[in-house]
Amino acid sequence: MTGTTGTGVRDTATLLQLVESELAPTLADGALSTDPDVLESYSRDEALFCPADGAVALVRATTVADVQATLRFASAYRIPVVPQGARSGISGGANAVPGCLLLSVERMSRILAVDVAERSVTVEPGVINQDLKNAVAEHGLSYPPDPGSVAISSIGGNVATNAGGLCCVKYGVTKDYVRRLTVVLADGTLATLGTGTAKGVAGLDLRGLFVGSEGTLGVIVEITLRLVPLLPEPLTAVATFTDERSAAATVADFMASGAQPSMLESLDRTTLRLLNEYGDFGLDDRAGAMLLMQSDGSGNRAAALAEVESFTARAEANGALDTGYSEDTADNEALVATRRLAQPAYERYAQAHGGGQLLDDICLPRARMPEFYDGLDRVRATSGLTIAVVAHAGDGNIHPSVFFDARDPADVERAERAFEEIMRLGLELGGTITGEHGVGYLKREWLPRELDEGNRRLHRAVKEALDPDGILNPGKMFADL
Amino acid sequence: MTGTTGTGVRDTATLLQLVESELAPTLADGALSTDPDVLESYSRDEALFCPADGAVALVRATTVADVQATLRFASAYRIPVVPQGARSGISGGANAVPGCLLLSVERMSRILAVDVAERSVTVEPGVINQDLKNAVAEHGLSYPPDPGSVAISSIGGNVATNAGGLCCVKYGVTKDYVRRLTVVLADGTLATLGTGTAKGVAGLDLRGLFVGSEGTLGVIVEITLRLVPLLPEPLTAVATFTDERSAAATVADFMASGAQPSMLESLDRTTLRLLNEYGDFGLDDRAGAMLLMQSDGSGNRAAALAEVESFTARAEANGALDTGYSEDTADNEALVATRRLAQPAYERYAQAHGGGQLLDDICLPRARMPEFYDGLDRVRATSGLTIAVVAHAGDGNIHPSVFFDARDPADVERAERAFEEIMRLGLELGGTITGEHGVGYLKREWLPRELDEGNRRLHRAVKEALDPDGILNPGKMFADL
Repeated sequence: MTGTTGTGVRDTATLLQLVESELAPTLADGALSTDPDVLESYSRDEALFCPADGAVALVRATTVADVQATLRFASAYRIPVVPQGARSGISGGANAVPGCLLLSVERMSRILAVDVAERSVTVEPGVINQDLKNAVAEHGLSYPPDPGSVAISSIGGNVATNAGGLCCVKYGVTKDYVRRLTVVLADGTLATLGTGTAKGVAGLDLRGLFVGSEGTLGVIVEITLRLVPLLPEPLTAVATFTDERSAAATVADFMASGAQPSMLESLDRTTLRLLNEYGDFGLDDRAGAMLLMQSDGSGNRAAALAEVESFTARAEANGALDTGYSEDTADNEALVATRRLAQPAYERYAQAHGGGQLLDDICLPRARMPEFYDGLDRVRATSGLTIAVVAHAGDGNIHPSVFFDARDPADVERAERAFEEIMRLGLELGGTITGEHGVGYLKREWLPRELDEGNRRLHRAVKEALDPDGILNPGKMFADL
Repeated sequence: MTGTTGTGVRDTATLLQLVESELAPTLADGALSTDPDVLESYSRDEALFCPADGAVALVRATTVADVQATLRFASAYRIPVVPQGARSGISGGANAVPGCLLLSVERMSRILAVDVAERSVTVEPGVINQDLKNAVAEHGLSYPPDPGSVAISSIGGNVATNAGGLCCVKYGVTKDYVRRLTVVLADGTLATLGTGTAKGVAGLDLRGLFVGSEGTLGVIVEITLRLVPLLPEPLTAVATFTDERSAAATVADFMASGAQPSMLESLDRTTLRLLNEYGDFGLDDRAGAMLLMQSDGSGNRAAALAEVESFTARAEANGALDTGYSEDTADNEALVATRRLAQPAYERYAQAHGGGQLLDDICLPRARMPEFYDGLDRVRATSGLTIAVVAHAGDGNIHPSVFFDARDPADVERAERAFEEIMRLGLELGGTITGEHGVGYLKREWLPRELDEGNRRLHRAVKEALDPDGILNPGKMFADL
């Protein structure tokens, strides 16, 4: 059984003594903390329903040497290590496990080099995504991936989870931008994976293996990313519909037509209502669904306009209530900003209704989305719960939020069941249980249902080969394979 | 030591008897051949200087079951298996090893499904790249990767080597298009890796691990590829220079300006001369270098024209002898066709000069290309050999061809040394020993020089985990790690 907690030393007092006597002297000053309040504040990410207890110490690494020293120590005594970035994840991947060392790289946040001719940037893992975007923009370059957490999540965490976002429908996900990684392995060995060049096939793609590995194979300490020329300013179009099925059918039609939108998001009736309750956005919440689409025409205004018109025509053919677009930059930015406020609006609603929100993340073939909404109505009916949906619809990546009263155990159970029914529906429709949020702790029981036995065997074999003592982020992703 | 020949049965007669008695009954009719002439013709790819002897039998699989049966049998008796596609590779990756079964998937060549809304295609591995392109074009879709072997190489081989081509500078390489793989593991187990959806992060990216794994981890039996809308027709520009350094500097300047050419190739003086000797192309072979650039403006003619003009302006600023472009489709296609004839022209020249040509494949940071040409002049001076160069210059991916008299052992040795000096130069300039041709047999001794010890250890661990008996394509890629 891989992925189990491989702790060789189980007594906290002994562990603490070892940390002070053997680990502390090998770390930079101020890197180590065993203060219970500090540990508590670093023990969890943004996930619900995931245990996060039992951290023994926190290492806030400032150098690669700190990371190596921590893993050498942890490996020698088989102490679990939980790698952490900005702890903005929502699957519990950065949560403490009993008897663990928390290993944060948030202080390793330097941008090391921007290479304009090569269109690449080399950074430490703690750099915040938006800070990276800003830094490379000064050189006329873009780093496209834009998860919802763009303002707070770190590049290391983005790589460790293969983060997505709104731009993926045209510009791809994090893995499409990672050229080279330096990682520290379970025993403290440093390894450089991939190449800094545009192409390279020397050996296995181990770089890719670490992208999305959620801290289970090693700790990422340096990252070279491919960049692209500054993204052109897009036009933004909106269409409203009586129901989600018409919106979903529009998405499938539009994408089948060869369109290349730089954003294609959907918001359901409940989301529109909660947004209007949250702020003065004037969204048409009598509508059953809204699509928000952007086209940058790859830099050509006329092409963008043609694509926008193709979109509105297809929306109208699918019975849209209303369509429109704006050439005004401020209008466009306001619309996208409103979309990005769906999560704060959800939080406000949850706080007023017992505090519970479970955010799901499935990805389907685009053409199956109408069936998904039929299934979701059944989940709503069975659970009796409010479920709001935003989706990166152009990619078939759907985020239903299940709201519940966290003080009512029966409601919590209903919510957990609804959350699971949504994953089941995703699998039934040929999709995946997670499009971009990752497995972490939250979905570890569901991973075996998606992967076939051959794939599960490969996972176990790779994990055992790279982390034979199972000290790296145990109890997460692999725990039930 | 991994990657060694793990043969448990060493006597050919015994092996043949086992093949006939135990393997043959489990295969489709006609799949098995032990005819020496057939074995001889299937024992090698297009590489030079790579051993290719000792194949015991050939399985031409027509179904997944044939592949599974072969690997179950091979695993039980620890018999080496060499997976093969079209055998168009040039690194010896498909060459026979002593006592092996050759396992060809060329007959598994069905296109299983095209999904227009999802923009994906699912194929068997034996489909020829150009046939796939033609089939999806009927649905208004493109599969961009276009290795030089596009007309003869199979998608399975393209995936197994992560093939590149001319379009990569804008459209990426094979790995950027692989969504899902079905593979047969060393013991015959079937595993499905990745997801058919646009996004997905459920578990490790094992799909990516198999892309470029050159038959060392398993046999690819089904592939789902992402497609894009039909590529727009490009404009083509040409610039000639007195020397390669000016051409290389133009490439670095142009790419640093934010350009997005859909092709950016360079041809050196010798290549221009050999092309003119091969056919009536009227290339200016008094020039020391030529750049051939295409821009599709992402579908916008004005943008393409602007990019072409930006290119010619930069070429002139770098002292171009002549620049020009054509809006005529036939002219454009003729120029690209001429570029694609460099290899036949090389072959003609080699045949007339002792038969030897070693084609190298390094990739550098673009800005280091002028230094590379300085170094290459030193290799020319030291070796006294003719070395011609074509390059996917926009990616820094350089293909020097070393010509020699294959009948003269001293010349052969000089050529092998020059070939190695080119790889050494690539590594010194921050590049890789192979941008797109792969390691195979030809470069296995050089792989350890590129990878650091941590990376080598990871390679060994992954190989041991997935192929514990070392039966999959032994003696190749991993042999010297």
